Amino acid sequence: MRLGIDIGGTKTAVVVLDEAGDVVVTTTGASGRGPDDVLARAVALSRHAVAGLGDGESVTSVGVCVPGLVDRAAGVVRHAVNLDVDELDLRHGVSDALGLVPEVDNDVKAAALAAYAQVGSGTGESLGYLNAGTGLAAAVVHADGVVRGPGGVAGEIGHIPVGGDVLCACGQTGCLETVASGSALRRMWPGDRDWMAAVADGDAAAAEVVRALASGLSLAVQVLVVASGADRVVASGGLTRAGQPLLDAVRAEQRRRAAESPFLAAMQLDTRVSFLDPHVPWAAVGAALLGATPYDDGRVRR
Amino acid sequence: MRLGIDIGGTKTAVVVLDEAGDVVVTTTGASGRGPDDVLARAVALSRHAVAGLGDGESVTSVGVCVPGLVDRAAGVVRHAVNLDVDELDLRHGVSDALGLVPEVDNDVKAAALAAYAQVGSGTGESLGYLNAGTGLAAAVVHADGVVRGPGGVAGEIGHIPVGGDVLCACGQTGCLETVASGSALRRMWPGDRDWMAAVADGDAAAAEVVRALASGLSLAVQVLVVASGADRVVASGGLTRAGQPLLDAVRAEQRRRAAESPFLAAMQLDTRVSFLDPHVPWAAVGAALLGATPYDDGRVRR
Repeated sequence: MRLGIDIGGTKTAVVVLDEAGDVVVTTTGASGRGPDDVLARAVALSRHAVAGLGDGESVTSVGVCVPGLVDRAAGVVRHAVNLDVDELDLRHGVSDALGLVPEVDNDVKAAALAAYAQVGSGTGESLGYLNAGTGLAAAVVHADGVVRGPGGVAGEIGHIPVGGDVLCACGQTGCLETVASGSALRRMWPGDRDWMAAVADGDAAAAEVVRALASGLSLAVQVLVVASGADRVVASGGLTRAGQPLLDAVRAEQRRRAAESPFLAAMQLDTRVSFLDPHVPWAAVGAALLGATPYDDGRVRR
Repeated sequence: MRLGIDIGGTKTAVVVLDEAGDVVVTTTGASGRGPDDVLARAVALSRHAVAGLGDGESVTSVGVCVPGLVDRAAGVVRHAVNLDVDELDLRHGVSDALGLVPEVDNDVKAAALAAYAQVGSGTGESLGYLNAGTGLAAAVVHADGVVRGPGGVAGEIGHIPVGGDVLCACGQTGCLETVASGSALRRMWPGDRDWMAAVADGDAAAAEVVRALASGLSLAVQVLVVASGADRVVASGGLTRAGQPLLDAVRAEQRRRAAESPFLAAMQLDTRVSFLDPHVPWAAVGAALLGATPYDDGRVRR
């Protein structure tokens, strides 16, 4: 069995996969704050998950993913601001507690691996994974692995300026994240009123927000196809819980723009995008896969 | 010896590389118009280039590159609008004329391969190749080859909208190509006055055009790093003939923007960009390399 731990800014999810890659246990709890607490809660949740296994079932590999900058060779995460972590040695911390040396990776890249294992692997196609949560980040998986770029920056398409005058958290202005993310939604739809309920009720202002977000997401898909070479793009993250109405709006926007541009029309972007099942803990599953693909030299290429 | 043919919209360049990969013959002439003429001129220039070889020297492989959509498996180019070519079977045409079956690829991807062979290969780093000619196109080479994307569209970053209201030839508005290309220069600096001479003379309007183009190019570099995962970016094409003043302006813009954004500062983009030697026929050299890297199954992976 493979153990996967996804330490998120708010909650930590742990899964156990069986040999077929199916999720047999899922355990979720609040993430800790500060290095010691973050590690302790991840270990406690892992023990809880493993305790649910049957007689004769045991965990043979473990992987951990976290937001932020991950030094994969060392198994250390740095500058995970949302966790109040300046530096945390997950490789040694987890192996001391659980007796298995984990692979450690960035959470978006881990989730992309899980999505690729489900929909991309074996097709020969490249997969773009788009995470539209509070922020907007992505990862692209080719047949030979996740594209990393210098310092793992590949996939940070949320911080490409695409126009507009909204200041981004990164210091730039008009980033893609300012028009296609949960924080973009919060800015465009302030207050407590349920956005999706308003959409369902035919509220004109809510529908306008759908169109604006769909425009941003369709541009994100275009960037992943033309700049990263993705054949397909799957989206996940809180924003995609809006589901079919938002996906329909993304595809409508792609068709509208294709009608204006033969270049875009040839790409058929509306046939390349879909939303992932929001009930699957993609990053935790990806973390479990990380720990299960050692190569001859002991490193994990993905 | 390896023969490389670059059929451009205006001229066709032919090179012969020796076994060390050095260019020993270069021949250039006007490109033909229409499929028969395009092929005939490429063949005539190739024969001229080969005629210049010494006794005992012979060509053992040939590669051809062209702008437009290339079906590499068939060796056919389609919709090469600038050549008045709707469809041209270069594989059969060249092999019938020269007696060697050529590999055929897109010109930007071929040039990227040549740049990678010079500066990227063996480093483990990914290389972004940026062609700022009349239009703006790119290609990214990882250790396992050129990223292609659906229909070979990967690298068409010139057609990512980044703001502004200039209509692009592709039908979209505000594309990166409208702020970082030879056509962008022509729009911003109309008339016959020598732009670079005006820059050298300290002309304020000419300097403003330098800054505007530098801003567009710096954004193109950023896209190649964050979306495509390039560790380094080399730029080529007519616009880069402006040389050091333009490169200095690109780096100054990157530093200015890094000062506003810790995210950008961490990427150190100003250390990742350079201009290629404009005197090297990169695409023709890449074409020659194409024809020289067959694998066991007879296909060329790059």
